[in-house]
Amino acid sequence: MTTRPHSPVTLAGPKVVALGGGHGLAASLAALRRVAGRLTAVVTVADDGGSSGRLRRELGVLPPGDLRMALAALCGDDDWGRTWAQVLQHRFSGGGELHNHAAGNLLIVALWDLLGERGSDYLVEGLDWVARLLGAQGRVLPMASVPMNIEALVGSTRRSANGAREIRTVSGQHSVATVEGDVIAVSLSPPDPPSCPETLAAIEDAEWVVLGPGSWFSSVIPHLLVPELRDAIASTSARRAVTLNLTPEGGETTNFTPEMHLEVLGAYAPELDIDLVIADKGSVPDEPTLRRIAGEMGAELVVADVVAPGGSPRHDPELLGRTFAQTLGRGRIGPWR
Amino acid sequence: MTTRPHSPVTLAGPKVVALGGGHGLAASLAALRRVAGRLTAVVTVADDGGSSGRLRRELGVLPPGDLRMALAALCGDDDWGRTWAQVLQHRFSGGGELHNHAAGNLLIVALWDLLGERGSDYLVEGLDWVARLLGAQGRVLPMASVPMNIEALVGSTRRSANGAREIRTVSGQHSVATVEGDVIAVSLSPPDPPSCPETLAAIEDAEWVVLGPGSWFSSVIPHLLVPELRDAIASTSARRAVTLNLTPEGGETTNFTPEMHLEVLGAYAPELDIDLVIADKGSVPDEPTLRRIAGEMGAELVVADVVAPGGSPRHDPELLGRTFAQTLGRGRIGPWR
Repeated sequence: MTTRPHSPVTLAGPKVVALGGGHGLAASLAALRRVAGRLTAVVTVADDGGSSGRLRRELGVLPPGDLRMALAALCGDDDWGRTWAQVLQHRFSGGGELHNHAAGNLLIVALWDLLGERGSDYLVEGLDWVARLLGAQGRVLPMASVPMNIEALVGSTRRSANGAREIRTVSGQHSVATVEGDVIAVSLSPPDPPSCPETLAAIEDAEWVVLGPGSWFSSVIPHLLVPELRDAIASTSARRAVTLNLTPEGGETTNFTPEMHLEVLGAYAPELDIDLVIADKGSVPDEPTLRRIAGEMGAELVVADVVAPGGSPRHDPELLGRTFAQTLGRGRIGPWR
Repeated sequence: MTTRPHSPVTLAGPKVVALGGGHGLAASLAALRRVAGRLTAVVTVADDGGSSGRLRRELGVLPPGDLRMALAALCGDDDWGRTWAQVLQHRFSGGGELHNHAAGNLLIVALWDLLGERGSDYLVEGLDWVARLLGAQGRVLPMASVPMNIEALVGSTRRSANGAREIRTVSGQHSVATVEGDVIAVSLSPPDPPSCPETLAAIEDAEWVVLGPGSWFSSVIPHLLVPELRDAIASTSARRAVTLNLTPEGGETTNFTPEMHLEVLGAYAPELDIDLVIADKGSVPDEPTLRRIAGEMGAELVVADVVAPGGSPRHDPELLGRTFAQTLGRGRIGPWR
């Protein structure tokens, strides 16, 4: 019979904060958990689709889905942690009122409800309870303490007869992430949401801050649109790393080159020094240009084999973890120098 | 920060199986957990109302509510166990599709779904996972491995002009438990459901089997209507105790005296020897008659002060536990002899 494990082991590696959302952040965490001495995920809370969207509309809570996915990615490396992670990730079927809800979303919301009734700092406390349930090797915090909305200006892919391009506004993370056309700009509402003290403290205390991979406009850039968070990322003494995506995403970053991803980041936070850019060997068509753009932002470029075998483009936790291990060593830039 | 506790302590007391459902079983468990060396709850799975009824209809699963309540009653006696028990008992509000669902019902069903996909003995395994989550001081098992339906013949409380009494059939535990009129007889469908091997083994291995308190026709008697279970209760070498209710229940047992509760039990299982009947001092209007009826079933009657202070009639875990401690000592009838 499986019994609950003891507290997770603390590694000797650096203190790392990973920012993002969705599958991209989960991939980053799966790699960083092998390397970081203390790992904190800071997660977008702008989802308005699926199970999260329904909970947000029904109960007025933070959309829990990206938080749940980050927690599951940090689950304890034993039967106890893996089983509870699978339970949390499990989605109901059956076609009824529970259909497509992830069990972990419901559990997180139940904890928030219960702890809120007790009058405690329910957002962070609720996530910490789920982390303890999982024996999680790290902490998961929200990017803001209120639900966020993403709006995007999207240019049509076709031009009209006179060569003009139709520009329209698309509202909601789900719509932005799946829109047809090029995202020109994104913004958040409310524009100046409160972050969490624990989130800001983790960034201030970090040795490395890691942005990406993930849906660039709907999961990565939003962190730079929360003023408190952006100030914390800019002012921390931590080094800053960016993990680039493996492919453009149909919809929001169609036809984006790796260097365009960096340029967009720079456009949203020109004051940000970047120390390290990690790109996949097979996903960089023009390495000299990418190295030049990275260098202009102050960053070393590390090109490594970090893609998982098989057809679908996703980062391999083992390979990406190895690259992190070679580069994030104890807060200094590592052996490739 | 609260951390997970270690395995629950095993007491030196007797091996006890408590049968019932709902609040009555929870009260019995809250008392027995102070006394039993090994405690197993065997729980009705006939609920068709509320959150359980919706899950049963939507997903075709066993109604989880009574199982959840029994698990919560056995939660570890520390901040970890109590908090997770509260989370499991938490009901969503908000008026939407989650309204009134208990979080623990959803968690149990998610575990069943997930473990069922793995092809394991998901019913018992899922309940064991929740028990481990809670650090539960005991095990919770279903009375049958398929959802059950209760049907009752109910006599109208008013008689027609010629003195005849209208008799009608009422279907469903929720309707039976809240019906206006006297329940004359109950039956289960399917009439011969499979029980669980673990349930039958626990009864066979027990030193005491405890029936009640609880809704007599919808939570207590049903155990005697499952042939495998009734055979196990009749053939076990365990002693058998009945804890009587504090008051008649509006609806199914209106105007029932304590001795009528015993007589109904005897009518449904005449072959059953009872060793011990526990009744509350303030709830026995005619002690000599109750003692005589108990004696005819082979039982000692223990009348003790077991009601909780305050207006609503419920058993006090401490007082009922003390009475159990004085009577269930290591499988022999205790010091009152």
